[in-house]
Formats: sequence, C-alpha cells, structure tokens
Amino acid sequence: MAKVYNFSAGPAVLPHEVLATAQAEMLDWHGSGMCVMEMSHRGKEFMEIIHDAEQDLRALMAIPAGYKVLFLQGGASQQFSMVPLNLAPVDGHIDVLDTGHWSKLAVKEARRYTGVNVVASSSDSNYAVVPDVASWQRTPDAAYFHYTSNETIGGLQCPFVPEVGDTPLVCDMSSDFLSREVDVSKFGLIYAGAQKNIGPSGLTVVIVREDLLGHAQAQTPTMLDYRVHADADSMYNTPATYPIYIAGLVFKWLKTRGGIKGMQARNDEKAGLLYHMIDSSNGFYFSHVQAPYRSKMNVVFRLKDEALEDVFLSEAKKNGLMQLKGHRSVGGMRASIYNAMPIEGVKALVHFMEDFARQHG
Amino acid sequence: MAKVYNFSAGPAVLPHEVLATAQAEMLDWHGSGMCVMEMSHRGKEFMEIIHDAEQDLRALMAIPAGYKVLFLQGGASQQFSMVPLNLAPVDGHIDVLDTGHWSKLAVKEARRYTGVNVVASSSDSNYAVVPDVASWQRTPDAAYFHYTSNETIGGLQCPFVPEVGDTPLVCDMSSDFLSREVDVSKFGLIYAGAQKNIGPSGLTVVIVREDLLGHAQAQTPTMLDYRVHADADSMYNTPATYPIYIAGLVFKWLKTRGGIKGMQARNDEKAGLLYHMIDSSNGFYFSHVQAPYRSKMNVVFRLKDEALEDVFLSEAKKNGLMQLKGHRSVGGMRASIYNAMPIEGVKALVHFMEDFARQHG
Repeated sequence: MAKVYNFSAGPAVLPHEVLATAQAEMLDWHGSGMCVMEMSHRGKEFMEIIHDAEQDLRALMAIPAGYKVLFLQGGASQQFSMVPLNLAPVDGHIDVLDTGHWSKLAVKEARRYTGVNVVASSSDSNYAVVPDVASWQRTPDAAYFHYTSNETIGGLQCPFVPEVGDTPLVCDMSSDFLSREVDVSKFGLIYAGAQKNIGPSGLTVVIVREDLLGHAQAQTPTMLDYRVHADADSMYNTPATYPIYIAGLVFKWLKTRGGIKGMQARNDEKAGLLYHMIDSSNGFYFSHVQAPYRSKMNVVFRLKDEALEDVFLSEAKKNGLMQLKGHRSVGGMRASIYNAMPIEGVKALVHFMEDFARQHG
Repeated sequence: MAKVYNFSAGPAVLPHEVLATAQAEMLDWHGSGMCVMEMSHRGKEFMEIIHDAEQDLRALMAIPAGYKVLFLQGGASQQFSMVPLNLAPVDGHIDVLDTGHWSKLAVKEARRYTGVNVVASSSDSNYAVVPDVASWQRTPDAAYFHYTSNETIGGLQCPFVPEVGDTPLVCDMSSDFLSREVDVSKFGLIYAGAQKNIGPSGLTVVIVREDLLGHAQAQTPTMLDYRVHADADSMYNTPATYPIYIAGLVFKWLKTRGGIKGMQARNDEKAGLLYHMIDSSNGFYFSHVQAPYRSKMNVVFRLKDEALEDVFLSEAKKNGLMQLKGHRSVGGMRASIYNAMPIEGVKALVHFMEDFARQHG
C-alpha cells in the first residue's frame, strides 16, 4: 500500500493507533475469545466497553452531572426529526440560525413538527460569514434555539457559542465535535454523527440536559424518544456495538494526546498552515469564507482558474492526497482535516499546493 | 485465548473467515490505503462494497425484480414504527399473529399509528405452538398481515409462510433471516436486524415490494420513510458503512458454503442434534415448545431441577460454552445456533450436556 492521506469529509480518517488496536483485538478482545461484534450487548464485556466510552467522553468534555450521554443510530438526519419531536410542542415554535446546507435540512424537517423562525441567514453574505448577532431576529418563547456549529459542506464555522439566555441551546456539532473546547453547561442538547471526529458511521452521540427529557410529542415513534433511550442507558434495543467500541478507542486516544485542549491546538495549527498558504498564493487559490468564520475542520477553497480544478484533483491523487473534491453543491476543493488527520498530511497537502501553483500559476 | 463457543442470541458469533478477512483488511482495503471505516460512503470503493453486498444478497435469496433492498439503521425496534407508518393508514387496521415477546412489541408500537387486530396468540398454549391457521380471526381489508418468523426469546419458530392472499405479508425475520429458504415473492416486506445471521448490530436489512413505497403517513419522519431510502439506494444519509461491509463478507461466505440451501441443511442437523439430546435425557432437560414449532436458531430449554441451572451455566462456561443463559423474561437456558455456529460447537454443547446429566441426574 502506498502512503495516502485521506481528506474525506466523512466517513473520514481515523487514528492509526485506533485501527491498529482494533486489528489486534479483532479475533479476541481482552482474552474473551470473542470479537467485539460477537458480544451480547448485555454481557459484562460489552457493558464495560460502553461504560468506559461514556466515562471517557464525560471526562474529555467535562460533561456536568444532569446531562445524559446517549449512543444512538440514524445520524444527524434522524436528529433533525428527533429534536423537534422531543423538545418542541406542535403548536409552539423554535428559533434557528441558518448557516448553510445542514442548517437548512434541520429547518426543513423541524417545520413538519413545529413552527420555525429563522433568526438570520448566511445566505445574505453568500455564506461568507455567520450573521452578526446584532442582526438576529429572535422570538419570545422559542422552545429552543438551534444552530450548526460547523457547516461541513460550506466550510463555515461558528467561532462563538450563541448566548440565548434561558432558551435551551441545541447544536448540531457533527463535524466539529471534540475538535475544540466547549462549555457543555451552555447547551440543552448537542448531537453529532460519529463519522467525523468520533468513529465509524452508524453511531450518533447525543448529550442532553435531563430536564428536557419526557416532553416528546404524542406522535413520536418510541425509538425517536430520547427518554426511552436515556431510561435504558442506550440499551433500549441493541445499540451499534462495534461503532461504540471504536468510538471508545478514539476517546482513549484523545486522552493520550492532551484531550480536547491538545486537539484544539493541533487543529489551529493545521488549519493555520492551510489557510496561510491559500492567502499567500496571490489569488491562485482562494476561500470564499471570511477569516473569522473559516472552518478549521473543512477547508473549502477554489482555484482562480476553474479549468485547472480537475487537473489539481488528479495530480493530488497521484501524490497520495485523496478525496479533495468539494461537495457537488458548492464545487471546488475541500480538505477535511479532522482530529485524526496528522499534521504531516496537512504539510504534504500544502507542499503539493505550492508546487502546483508554481507549475500552473 | 482459550477456544470458546459463543451461544449469544445476538449480537452473535460471526464466521471466523469473515473476521479474519476483516482483520487482514483493517488497515488497507484492497490496496486503497484506507480502512473501510475511513471511506467516504459516496466514493467508488464503498459504492463497490455496498453494490456487491446488495447483489450477493439478491442472489442468495433470489430476490425478484420489483423489490428494493435497503440497508438501514435502528434495528427491528425502529421497524416496529416504520412498518405501520409506511404501510397502514391512520384510520385503517392491520392483522397480526402473536407468537411471543417480539410480536407483542410490534403490536404495541403499531397500535400508536393504526388499528391492530390480533388474529391469534401463542399465549393460549403458553407459547408452545404457533396457533393453528384454522383458528385465525383475520379481518377484511387489513393493510397488511404481520408475523415474527422466529421468536428469539421464546424459541418458537413458524414452520410455514402464512398464506394471506392479496394482503401484503410483512415478516420480522430478524433471527432466522438467511437460515432457511424462503420465497420472497410471497412477502410484501421483510425486515431483519443484522446482529444474528447478517453481521454486526447497527444495521437493519429491509426487503420491500416497490408498490408498497410512497404511502407513508403524513407524520412520518423523513428518515423513517422507506421511499426516501429507496429513492437514494440507501444513501439518503451516511449509512452504517462498516456493518454493511461485514454483512457483505458474510454474504460472500454464505455463497462458499452452499448458499441458504447449504445453511438450511446444516441448521437442521445442528438443531436436530441438540433437540434429540434434550428429548433423550429422560426429562433431565426439557423444551416447552412442541416439536414442529421448535426454533432451529434459538434452542430454549430448562432443567427439571431448576436449582441446577446456575451450576449448569457456570460449568458450561468453564468448558468454553458461553452465553447460554435464557432471557430473563423466560429463564432457563438458550443456545443460539445461528449460521455461523459451527457444528463442532453444537457437538461440544451436546457432549457437555450429556456429561452434566450423568453427573447430576
């Protein structure tokens, strides 16, 4: 195998150490004679795995007492239904900040179950900024305030946590979960699909303040009721055991790397290298996102000469720099540089981009 | 590691060859330089994996044209909501055959979305038989007829496919999927959680006749609408990629073992050995299920002397025979002998049970 760096937006690169451990334990987890995939979810071996995963996540994020951690399925897309079904009344409404593709999908699904007020939209800036707080048109008595902390497709990241007073703050943190420090106590509910910074797809992590449980709309399917899962400690039915195991290994790996604080420093450095190169390219490369709102997870950029983009992608691939094509809805390039992307990968990309600009500039 | 045989009811034993392949491919799938967990679900590598998995499953089960195969999440429990939400009108009703624990849960959830008529119940026989067809109280115009082909907890298996004329037949086949030949064309919809005969938990396979798509109730969450997933070939959102990969390896393994026909012959032999031993034990062991309805997947049995059951379990464990404890709701023992349980495991269990009966009889 040639050494490659995988810049996929998700499912995405995982830490080599985690995969090596999974490989070593594949046929026999800790002397049990079983692969983790073969374990009863109610057996003591798996109960230990899920317990450790939760405790490690709680430690990493300093999740306060009074919050439940749930390991669910269905991805952020299923959360787009679950959040309004559980947290909003049919005859009530919510406030939402629109910063792009994923915010819009959350809005669309929420409208089926409650009223939705969009407080402000990044569309006014063609997705170059998160709208200024002063421009937000919030409403009284919103059941919650929803935002997307990082737009995976647009490459726009919210650099602050909205201050919304007593309104429960709900965040789709799928693509920057565990990448920077956050004060969980500011949130009512955080959700994240696993396939960026947590582990394999098929797992969704939800952190929810306990007082928000138990108010689901009558029509809510049992499997979409947070309280059902909270009461059963994510064991109402068989959870996605192997993805939870891998997530647990990722959490342990994070602890050996200085936790989230350590990750944040590395992520700042990685994103800094890449944006610096883009900004010093005399416009050969450019980002449409204004500096304070540029994502440190998904670096979206274009080439001044669009005709060169296909050449760029194919030459990058020859150099072992994979999956750099931007989402079809926005075009251009996207380098996703989640926690598990080593700085060597970013440096290799930067060097390649410099060479490419020299050759084609 | 000591050699163990794992009789867990699910998640359950997987073929050794499958796990060995997964181990070998963990760090580099087919020269891609990536673990399957790291692949974009829309990249050509994973598209090949999911395509092959679907085609192999179609070949194994001879799934006719006009049926969609969906790779979903949420397990059978989520299907308990999805089936009525998609296939029944709010003001209509369905017919259900009750054969035990899982049928009852399906009934309970379906009642939240449509009318439910229980045509007959195994409770009348204390779950010793599937009620005789002549006793079924079917209703006209049922939106569908639902049954559970194998009750994992009760150890009761339906030995026939109900003949229900033009009424769409819906089956929860979670615990005997791929274990015996079935004529898919008799069904409107088949669903199965993966963690018995398919692969790891976190994956649900649905086979649905296309004319049943597109009639979901208005309240149906987008992620619970079969048509949404069918239209997107299971790629509406990120699917559970690694479980799908493992399922694909299981399907290939089945093909090398004579397909479902080969499995059925082996399963008949394995179950035959175990029930024969139970029936020849002069009542030391006994099954409460009448012979024609005994599950070939989950062999549920008790000891005449209940006080010996804990001893039985602990000595079995010392002999490498794991997870034989019955479900807490029925007690006793349960030996789950899915496709991946080798006949050597069943023979080892039979020998142990003979020895145990001799020592304690």
